[in-house]
Amino acid sequence: MTLEKILDRIDADLDHTVDRLFDLLRIPSISTDPAYKTDCDRAADWLVNDLKTLGFDASKRPTPGHPMVVAHGGDGGPHLLFYGHYDVQPVDPLNLWHRDPFDPALEDTANGKVIRARGASDDKGQLMTFIEALRAWKAETGTLPCRITIFLEGEEESGSPSLIPFLQENKDELKADIALICDTGMFNRDTPAITTMLRGLCGEELTITGPNKDLHSGMFGGPAANPIRVLTRILAGLHDDNGRVTLPGFYDGVEELTDALKKQWEGLGFDADGFLGGVGLSTPAGEKGYTALEQIWSRPTCEFNGITGGYTGEGFKTVLPSIASAKVSFRLVGTQDPHAIRKAFRAYVESMLPPDCSVSFKEHGAGPASVMSLDHPAFEQARGALSDEWPNAAAFVGAGGSIPVAGYFKTYLDMDAMLIGFANGDDQIHSPNEKYDLRSFHKGIRSWARILAAVNG
Amino acid sequence: MTLEKILDRIDADLDHTVDRLFDLLRIPSISTDPAYKTDCDRAADWLVNDLKTLGFDASKRPTPGHPMVVAHGGDGGPHLLFYGHYDVQPVDPLNLWHRDPFDPALEDTANGKVIRARGASDDKGQLMTFIEALRAWKAETGTLPCRITIFLEGEEESGSPSLIPFLQENKDELKADIALICDTGMFNRDTPAITTMLRGLCGEELTITGPNKDLHSGMFGGPAANPIRVLTRILAGLHDDNGRVTLPGFYDGVEELTDALKKQWEGLGFDADGFLGGVGLSTPAGEKGYTALEQIWSRPTCEFNGITGGYTGEGFKTVLPSIASAKVSFRLVGTQDPHAIRKAFRAYVESMLPPDCSVSFKEHGAGPASVMSLDHPAFEQARGALSDEWPNAAAFVGAGGSIPVAGYFKTYLDMDAMLIGFANGDDQIHSPNEKYDLRSFHKGIRSWARILAAVNG
Repeated sequence: MTLEKILDRIDADLDHTVDRLFDLLRIPSISTDPAYKTDCDRAADWLVNDLKTLGFDASKRPTPGHPMVVAHGGDGGPHLLFYGHYDVQPVDPLNLWHRDPFDPALEDTANGKVIRARGASDDKGQLMTFIEALRAWKAETGTLPCRITIFLEGEEESGSPSLIPFLQENKDELKADIALICDTGMFNRDTPAITTMLRGLCGEELTITGPNKDLHSGMFGGPAANPIRVLTRILAGLHDDNGRVTLPGFYDGVEELTDALKKQWEGLGFDADGFLGGVGLSTPAGEKGYTALEQIWSRPTCEFNGITGGYTGEGFKTVLPSIASAKVSFRLVGTQDPHAIRKAFRAYVESMLPPDCSVSFKEHGAGPASVMSLDHPAFEQARGALSDEWPNAAAFVGAGGSIPVAGYFKTYLDMDAMLIGFANGDDQIHSPNEKYDLRSFHKGIRSWARILAAVNG
Repeated sequence: MTLEKILDRIDADLDHTVDRLFDLLRIPSISTDPAYKTDCDRAADWLVNDLKTLGFDASKRPTPGHPMVVAHGGDGGPHLLFYGHYDVQPVDPLNLWHRDPFDPALEDTANGKVIRARGASDDKGQLMTFIEALRAWKAETGTLPCRITIFLEGEEESGSPSLIPFLQENKDELKADIALICDTGMFNRDTPAITTMLRGLCGEELTITGPNKDLHSGMFGGPAANPIRVLTRILAGLHDDNGRVTLPGFYDGVEELTDALKKQWEGLGFDADGFLGGVGLSTPAGEKGYTALEQIWSRPTCEFNGITGGYTGEGFKTVLPSIASAKVSFRLVGTQDPHAIRKAFRAYVESMLPPDCSVSFKEHGAGPASVMSLDHPAFEQARGALSDEWPNAAAFVGAGGSIPVAGYFKTYLDMDAMLIGFANGDDQIHSPNEKYDLRSFHKGIRSWARILAAVNG
């Protein structure tokens, strides 16, 4: 049977597969920092060249930001669009990494071998599971399994500013029967997952200016407005004592879970103690009255992702700073409107400004939450294929992260998306020492081979 | 008359005087940053050598931190102890400087020539006014005017950790009839001042730890405690809506102004609009019900001097940080006890910690406020001498800054201190582009010559 041969080939070729991933991981494609612009470009080139070796008609497509990679190959069967992103998060604080984040290595751990590098999991390792499955398929059969479009983005970690215009301008080229997105996780180590609910995101940066220069707190302390004090007062007012966000209209479009869904999630046996305990915590800190899983999958948040102002070096400086700033993000659910929330946030901040203080805002992305319809037969076909590969049957789950592209595919290309990924909760994505289990990578490749076989009947 | 000749000599020698100050300003003696330890040492050596050329028995005296400079010279008359500090503030943000902060230069401005460099005013330029007055005196008369001890510190800008032990261990050597401290300002450009009330300082750094590593806000946002959120809530709770500090017992020892003092201060004609307008402000932001001058000279504060947490670089990162920290300082008046306030602050912070969060504290200096007794005849003698030099008569004033050494001289050496300095409000001490008016430097040297003549009858 062909599938068995393909799976055997995947097993036999694993070392080379890892070597190819390492080549990609060595490119520091940090999209949010302009200093890495040429590296993002190099990562796109690497992928174009690799896809060409599989017979794809692959090209790098310019945008005002980092380029897209688009590749077309195969024919017949369902038309699948595969999406991943080749850009990665920044690596600071660098001193907390055990090794150079862009010098990947296999490391032995209590849970088996892991691939250690920035992007190992998010999303280079994940996107390569699909490409490697195609490579094995092509090598074994001489062709790709069906008509496939590969679409790889380089701005996912920096708010995807070019994504919507690109989808609009290339709608006919990109529209397929269904999208496959590999940027999510397993439910647990033995239970694969298809993610059908994703939170959206609205990112904001605000900078408060008080005096027109840094001042001495002895000479001016008292009468001079202190922008750090103003900023902390603004941020502290965004949550009430129950952890609810105080912005007017913030909960418009947020629905309570149905009893049925609540029961299904309880049935998954989520280990909240283990989840929180793994990062040194014990008590769900979100909205009162919701379990940790409900807080992640079904409740919106307002989080502070960065804050800075005044003297932050060694020792002490009795300065009253001229400016202070913070990065704030909202995770969204249901039909919450990121633009309305941004507007409410800005109005609130402006209402809190004392005399002599001003504020400027910077927008960092906006994407609504996604809730998949499960009508397409591929959902059940993929669930079966995943259940064949892994110890436990696959689950339909929610996710706390934002993968706005799934919503954009629906909005701009009228296309459903299946979110299937093999990350684990301890992958430390966005943190120092990111890793991807070698098992995730290996069985991820095998999973895609099975899914491709299943959707092609 | 000898004084006239000394003043003429000061005028004639001004260029060389400036050259010597430039040599000292070129040494980047930033005491708070360990990277500049050898530079602090070099500044002390420079001063020892310079004082030796004036016939002082001068030496560098080791401490656990940066060294003290102690010099003895002259005899007869009153025994004067002169205090200054040779260390300077950090220079960040460096990009806001118009020139290298350690490459001093004379610049023409609308208010005349200024000496531009870190430390030009605070305190290298100020301490050199006294030393240059002695140099002219010695050159003209062949001797120093009376018995003089020079005592220069290298840790004033980093909380003076070695000062109290040094005063205790060298009490007999340092005790004089009266101390002269040159680290304060003019009341305005034409009105010299003797500062008789100084605010104290209590500095604290707090670091909040939540999760044991940085987390992805998609995966953990909601259930994971966010230390920035905890920190902003803590800081925002330190002031009430009237700008009063909320710590229990904070106002113990704070007295309301007497009507007489209030009236005297009103008579000074302080230009609050000009003072605030000069830094882009218009409304006193401190405690409601007090004028700007009262807020600076007579009211305590709680200020936030620095804050940092999470991602603060370009762009956006959806991180939930593991830690967030802030530098907080209290300006103290009357008999407020810095140690009691530190204790109350720490108790408050701990009372505000949610589950899973911990805090660590770092102490950055503690000094009570100083209120001088004016019994020593030198106060009136110096007031007369200053009034002879400057367009307007000298005033007894308060000051918002902390010069804890004045209080320590009283406590540990039972010695009054006269605080006389020539800084102007626009000197930008502790800020980028610090300067000292050439006029302050020149007339400051002349002022000390006059004061030395006056106190020696």
